[in-house]
Amino acid sequence: MRPEVLEIPLFVNLLAVFVGALGGTIRAGEDDHTDLMGVLTLAAAMGFGGGIIRDVLLGNLPPAAFREPLYLVAAAAAAGLGMLFLYYLKKLGRFLWWLDTLIIGLFACVGANAALIAGLGRLPTVVIGTIGAVGGLILTDLLQARPSSIMYAGPPNAVAGMAGALVYALVYTGTQPVVTTALAVAATFVVRLTGP
Amino acid sequence: MRPEVLEIPLFVNLLAVFVGALGGTIRAGEDDHTDLMGVLTLAAAMGFGGGIIRDVLLGNLPPAAFREPLYLVAAAAAAGLGMLFLYYLKKLGRFLWWLDTLIIGLFACVGANAALIAGLGRLPTVVIGTIGAVGGLILTDLLQARPSSIMYAGPPNAVAGMAGALVYALVYTGTQPVVTTALAVAATFVVRLTGP
Amino acid sequence: MRPEVLEIPLFVNLLAVFVGALGGTIRAGEDDHTDLMGVLTLAAAMGFGGGIIRDVLLGNLPPAAFREPLYLVAAAAAAGLGMLFLYYLKKLGRFLWWLDTLIIGLFACVGANAALIAGLGRLPTVVIGTIGAVGGLILTDLLQARPSSIMYAGPPNAVAGMAGALVYALVYTGTQPVVTTALAVAATFVVRLTGP
Repeated sequence: MRPEVLEIPLFVNLLAVFVGALGGTIRAGEDDHTDLMGVLTLAAAMGFGGGIIRDVLLGNLPPAAFREPLYLVAAAAAAGLGMLFLYYLKKLGRFLWWLDTLIIGLFACVGANAALIAGLGRLPTVVIGTIGAVGGLILTDLLQARPSSIMYAGPPNAVAGMAGALVYALVYTGTQPVVTTALAVAATFVVRLTGP
Repeated sequence: MRPEVLEIPLFVNLLAVFVGALGGTIRAGEDDHTDLMGVLTLAAAMGFGGGIIRDVLLGNLPPAAFREPLYLVAAAAAAGLGMLFLYYLKKLGRFLWWLDTLIIGLFACVGANAALIAGLGRLPTVVIGTIGAVGGLILTDLLQARPSSIMYAGPPNAVAGMAGALVYALVYTGTQPVVTTALAVAATFVVRLTGP
Repeated sequence: MRPEVLEIPLFVNLLAVFVGALGGTIRAGEDDHTDLMGVLTLAAAMGFGGGIIRDVLLGNLPPAAFREPLYLVAAAAAAGLGMLFLYYLKKLGRFLWWLDTLIIGLFACVGANAALIAGLGRLPTVVIGTIGAVGGLILTDLLQARPSSIMYAGPPNAVAGMAGALVYALVYTGTQPVVTTALAVAATFVVRLTGP
């Protein structure tokens, strides 16, 4: 029996890019000198940077973010709305935190699944899943010339993504994507809830 | 009818890499500690960094910059001449500005064309074209650990590249590469001439 | 006669990743705020970052570092041992310097060989070999938001790697991998021994 590709429904993927891009817009808003192109760049980087790095490493080119134009629409919409309502957006912190954790978990699953389909072993799968989950953050830090925040004490985004990818890689049988994903996302939440 | 690959003549491509690499040499010259390897690195990064990122994203590997050895020769020649004549090179500012704008426009066209040939939609095509046009600048900023200059108020390089790619993607029919390219480069000039 | 793939024995490759990752661990230890994920990230980046960039540029995807799980084990082991014995590790400076030079030379050969097999010319081969040799250093600098150390006066890592790749590309015939590699590694040592 062939292993199943993990088909996260498109609207969930789009929501993930949208929320990630909102986070990028907030990052852009922290710096007064960022112009419109900067907001769009950071929204895109945070929204699907992790997916692009994942697809480049697995050789799935062009990356999904460019094959489906709606991803770019979602990121641009997030950047536009984020700029208009930045004041209110920042007040949504706790709600966004939940969404963000959900998305780290989902991206870890998508990355881990793609790695397994590509025939990688379980250990590399965990690494690819983690990169898929926090690659957007890494790219955003690079573009802003900040030391990569995944390497320093703080919210355990990378550890949470790794926990999700690890559970996914361990539980994965190729036949129960929903159960596997649910367990992996739960692991992501546990790490993030118990972290600083 | 098959869409045509945009065949920018090789000498135009080489000129583009040469001028871009001169810009990288000037960037290296701003920093007293840069050694010869640093000049070569920045010349190469600015000369064909955008093309490499474009080719990686589209899966056209190895990138054109490595398949045709003359690109490396052009970048190394620019680095050598740039170091010898840095004083005079800086006086050429206005002339280089025109050449640079032309090249941003041409690279936006080459990137957009490659994206369309790869079957991408018009919106992703604009993004790939923009990345092809200013990817060298992004890479140079990364290597010098500066916040990416495309994100901040200043010369609208990225917007100019995006305008070129946008016009190319909209006008493109696959049959009139010269007209399409001329219109796209004109759009690039309009944005840059009206920008700061 | 087909050109031979340069088969560096797996244990040599693993040793190279291990020593590179030790260097990454030392880099992480210079910065008090780095957490466990940061040590693992820098160990991996320094251990096989160059190999990943090389494989991405040549289109050999997924990169070797992910196809063979033992690479990740070697990097993780180096990070673990490096953290436990950081004090002693720093005392090993001179011994590590010899190992490090050997590894720069070997990675330059592996990169140059892969580029020649991919059909690239001798000049691009030198560039790919150099990137393979010092790409881990470049990636580590990027992640720590430091200007890329290969561009500044200091230990001539990039020049040493380039010397190795240059000798490999010039001497290469496709039939004498051991002799070719020995000469290239010797060139790497000559440059590094005569450098600052």
